[in-house]
Amino acid sequence: MQLLERAKELEAEGRKIIHMEIGEPDFSTPTSIIDAAKMALDSGDLFYTPSTGNPALQQALSNWYKDEYNVDVSPERILITPGTSGAFSLIYAALLEAGESILLPDPGYPCQRNFIRLAGAEPINIPVGPDTRYHLSAELVKQHWKTGTRAAVVINPSNPTGTLIDADELQHIAQTCRKSGGYLISDEIYHGLTYGIKARCALEFDEHAIVVNGFSKRWAMTGWRVGWIIVPEELIDACRRVMQNIFIAAPTLSQYAAIAALKEQETCEAMRTAYDERRQYLLAELAKLGFDIVVQPQGAFYIYANVENITDDSKVFCWDILEKTGVAITPGEDFGQFQSDRHVRFSYATSLENIREGIQRLKNTVGDCR
Amino acid sequence: MQLLERAKELEAEGRKIIHMEIGEPDFSTPTSIIDAAKMALDSGDLFYTPSTGNPALQQALSNWYKDEYNVDVSPERILITPGTSGAFSLIYAALLEAGESILLPDPGYPCQRNFIRLAGAEPINIPVGPDTRYHLSAELVKQHWKTGTRAAVVINPSNPTGTLIDADELQHIAQTCRKSGGYLISDEIYHGLTYGIKARCALEFDEHAIVVNGFSKRWAMTGWRVGWIIVPEELIDACRRVMQNIFIAAPTLSQYAAIAALKEQETCEAMRTAYDERRQYLLAELAKLGFDIVVQPQGAFYIYANVENITDDSKVFCWDILEKTGVAITPGEDFGQFQSDRHVRFSYATSLENIREGIQRLKNTVGDCR
Ligand SMILES: Cc1ncc(COP(=O)(O)O)c(C=O)c1O
Ligand SMILES: Cc1ncc(COP(=O)(O)O)c(C=O)c1O
Repeated sequence: MQLLERAKELEAEGRKIIHMEIGEPDFSTPTSIIDAAKMALDSGDLFYTPSTGNPALQQALSNWYKDEYNVDVSPERILITPGTSGAFSLIYAALLEAGESILLPDPGYPCQRNFIRLAGAEPINIPVGPDTRYHLSAELVKQHWKTGTRAAVVINPSNPTGTLIDADELQHIAQTCRKSGGYLISDEIYHGLTYGIKARCALEFDEHAIVVNGFSKRWAMTGWRVGWIIVPEELIDACRRVMQNIFIAAPTLSQYAAIAALKEQETCEAMRTAYDERRQYLLAELAKLGFDIVVQPQGAFYIYANVENITDDSKVFCWDILEKTGVAITPGEDFGQFQSDRHVRFSYATSLENIREGIQRLKNTVGDCR
Repeated sequence: MQLLERAKELEAEGRKIIHMEIGEPDFSTPTSIIDAAKMALDSGDLFYTPSTGNPALQQALSNWYKDEYNVDVSPERILITPGTSGAFSLIYAALLEAGESILLPDPGYPCQRNFIRLAGAEPINIPVGPDTRYHLSAELVKQHWKTGTRAAVVINPSNPTGTLIDADELQHIAQTCRKSGGYLISDEIYHGLTYGIKARCALEFDEHAIVVNGFSKRWAMTGWRVGWIIVPEELIDACRRVMQNIFIAAPTLSQYAAIAALKEQETCEAMRTAYDERRQYLLAELAKLGFDIVVQPQGAFYIYANVENITDDSKVFCWDILEKTGVAITPGEDFGQFQSDRHVRFSYATSLENIREGIQRLKNTVGDCR
């Protein structure tokens, strides 16, 4: 993230930076959602919602799960949170005692580890590579599960790798977690942003799975801070208590807007198509430049590339190309420790035009950085 | 809070409930703020803000501190949070190691204790009574401070008592905290809602004080989830790291609206005047009914009454009057343990008309509940 700061500094100095380091849609929130928010503003009801969320949004999400995945989830099990981030604070606070642990993929979304540490518990980072599509496997979960482990986390599609987990494997992980007396936690925030394949919801395989998701990515609603978590019955009370105490509730207006978001299809599909176009372009061009993309990413807006052929230190490399070319990408170390010096993440949450320019700039320079 | 649920149940059954248990303004957000939100919606910029907040809001707050309290606070020290609740999660996560402790007034705002426990630390509840206007005193802070104590919290005006702390005492507490090597944390969320007296900001006395505040109460913006915390230089980095990880950022639209809120005066003053009118009416009427209000509340929208003359169990009393009269008030136990069975909290965040009806109903029944 220091790199992001340096990129902004360079920008302030007047340089045009190509931002391929950012994990946020470049699209504005769809108009239908904005319009719904304006209507809600006129209603005058901007009071706290119940801590578990606006019941109408819980119900809308319950219906949405039926339509989207054909799973039955009662509205009471769907808790509305201030972003998916809020969902993580919540579940780890509700689930963990000091000294307990959670299994995480390395590389993975880095904030996870910190939530777990904040709860006084231990994040167990499990190295994952191309053989498991950069995901945990049932085998890995079995190997690393120990006394006091409460859950294993799958980020599907993955940040930083954009890869999807095999449906069979997801099912096996769920079973393994259940047998071990713990939970599968499935981070599904990039669902809906997949290309040529549909991501599977963990609840299709295990009704006790904990699912977190949110409106930030698929619906381009990052700044609205609204997400949700689905928990099994036995955790509802503990979660509700934590929510009352740590958030009071998610933002009211954003919850109204979220109800409209669930009806939005056209603009979401247009965004998805645009991402896919960028993905295909970038995959082809990066390969030509010597970046090794071992597993084809089919989701999110990330490409995780092995840079062994180009550099022996991905961090130095990222800083180097930022200074030399004004192209910002993220070094592997931001996502974990396992082979992080050999990997970088490209985000294609920026226009195809920018991406083309980025590739052009890299073409002239990657050689020098080797 | 079970009582609130029961009140809603009775309402669902068709009974008219007089809500004097709720800690939330009954007023809608002022129109000027709504309008600013609409303009922001049109701008299309609803992306994540920096984790420390929209710099324009930080600057606006910095100016506001100069105007409101004549204190200089650099914008970098003002971190924007998802509600004051977010400010508490943040500061306790940033400040506390397992086993450390925080001094709190009992009675006090109950969520505090849970934030502290979540951080693996110990809330030390200090009984406070009329002799210190239901606030900590420098003497009490000295008495209870121990190895590992990191801060003492003042809620000024207090929830549940509505009382203000003496300026001299606030200054002494600040000095005591400094001398003990820790911080004064001042919860100033009810500033601006005071009657006949202005609440003093802890920064007027101690530039190292940690101040938390938010837009929920004075500006009637509960559902917007936006607040702030002012920390001394040395804590900025630790706080920023925690924020990035646990919230990403406060809601973007609410931050734009908050900038407009800081310019709003007329409607805020009208709300304040309405609260004051209710307060005066309620104080007079409660006294006639035998409620003993030992220290005159001059702030917030709460009256904390001793009910010894009426009942020997405030909880039973509250449930009783709810069932018999449909008037909902909060038993002392929701705010701590010290003499909680002898106290109740009335909130006057409901219309004068409702309050009059509530009093009328109580008149006919309080005798029976004795
Ligand atoms: C895998 C993953 N989970 C969760 C989040 C949190 O997003 P939000 O809090 O905006 O819902 C992100 C954001 O980048 C992410 O990449
Ligand atoms: C004393 C006090 N502090 C903080 C809060 C939290 O308010 P918010 O999170 O809406 O800013 C409340 C709410 O009732 C309160 O009474």
